[in-house]
Amino acid sequence: MGEVKVIGTWSSPFVKRVEMALKIKGVEYEYIEESIRNKSALLLQHNPIHKKVPILLHNGKPILESMVILEYIDEVWEGPPILPRDPYERAMARFWHKFINDECADKMWNACWSTGEEREKLKQEAMKALEILENEIKGNKFFGGDKIGVVDHTANSIAYWIPIAANFVGLELMNDEKFPNLCRWADDYNNDTFVKENLPNKDDCIALMKKM
Amino acid sequence: MGEVKVIGTWSSPFVKRVEMALKIKGVEYEYIEESIRNKSALLLQHNPIHKKVPILLHNGKPILESMVILEYIDEVWEGPPILPRDPYERAMARFWHKFINDECADKMWNACWSTGEEREKLKQEAMKALEILENEIKGNKFFGGDKIGVVDHTANSIAYWIPIAANFVGLELMNDEKFPNLCRWADDYNNDTFVKENLPNKDDCIALMKKM
Repeated sequence: MGEVKVIGTWSSPFVKRVEMALKIKGVEYEYIEESIRNKSALLLQHNPIHKKVPILLHNGKPILESMVILEYIDEVWEGPPILPRDPYERAMARFWHKFINDECADKMWNACWSTGEEREKLKQEAMKALEILENEIKGNKFFGGDKIGVVDHTANSIAYWIPIAANFVGLELMNDEKFPNLCRWADDYNNDTFVKENLPNKDDCIALMKKM
Repeated sequence: MGEVKVIGTWSSPFVKRVEMALKIKGVEYEYIEESIRNKSALLLQHNPIHKKVPILLHNGKPILESMVILEYIDEVWEGPPILPRDPYERAMARFWHKFINDECADKMWNACWSTGEEREKLKQEAMKALEILENEIKGNKFFGGDKIGVVDHTANSIAYWIPIAANFVGLELMNDEKFPNLCRWADDYNNDTFVKENLPNKDDCIALMKKM
């Protein structure tokens, strides 16, 4: 199936999604660690628009944006499905992916790194969206149902990265009292054997945040 | 293939994309006009999260978000493809769809309806993104190549709706001098026989903007 490379950084939830999808499919790939502060010629060549990771290089051709990459991996390689096979369930997965990223994760992350009114506004918007998500996960082990699915992976920053950042900056976002089902889901996700192997070390994440 | 309904408003580019995709596939559907100001129980029942159109109802099940709907239509019904069939080209179409919506269309539209510093900031960001798009369309008739493709349809607001709005509020966004290829593309898109039949009347759009 040709040459497969992933350009990433060890600390990125977006990169981890892509690596996990390749591992689920059993695709061998070369991983190239990118420096965030000193972007390589390879990165700028293949993603001149956003200058971001992850980049999937398949036979030298770049595929960009983590969800676009997950869909590509699912379409190109055989093996366990990444997205649900049923068109309606697939549509729902795409809907929740977009909702979680646009309405929850982006706002939660940006709330961590902003201050004052801007932080409060982002927090309030994220809280409203999290209430919807709390309701959605209620009664299900994962967004994928009994098993971890693509929506769980694209929500990975809410489970792992954002709580670390929120704790680091002293911002309360997703607590047990208000979001018991989401907190339970995050625990189950982070402690899944396969996921756990693919999460960066917490202390390393905190050390990176201190440097930032 | 069951009962197909589209809940929409006549003035929405997002709704038009969905209707055009159904027409390309030759799918018969019932169109239900929604009131933006007085949202119906049907709309609130099927899209309680965003309370927005378009909604595709297929055998009573709602599919939301225009690009998610286009993918669903393409997967469920036979007929001419909506997205490219090649996985790499499909990935590129998904990438450009996201770029055009997030970096160009949303910012251009919001620039029209904002003022002062906020307008200037949105305009500058959109201009930068349009330069990238200008470069992308150079040498191609459409984003889909020789023929109109899904990216052209998901960029429809840049071709038709936003220029009307920008002109209405007196904001210069996409002029011939700076973006000759994009302006040529917009003309070709708007004057395509099939597209033309599916665009709302310009005077009706202006009358609506006056009311807003």
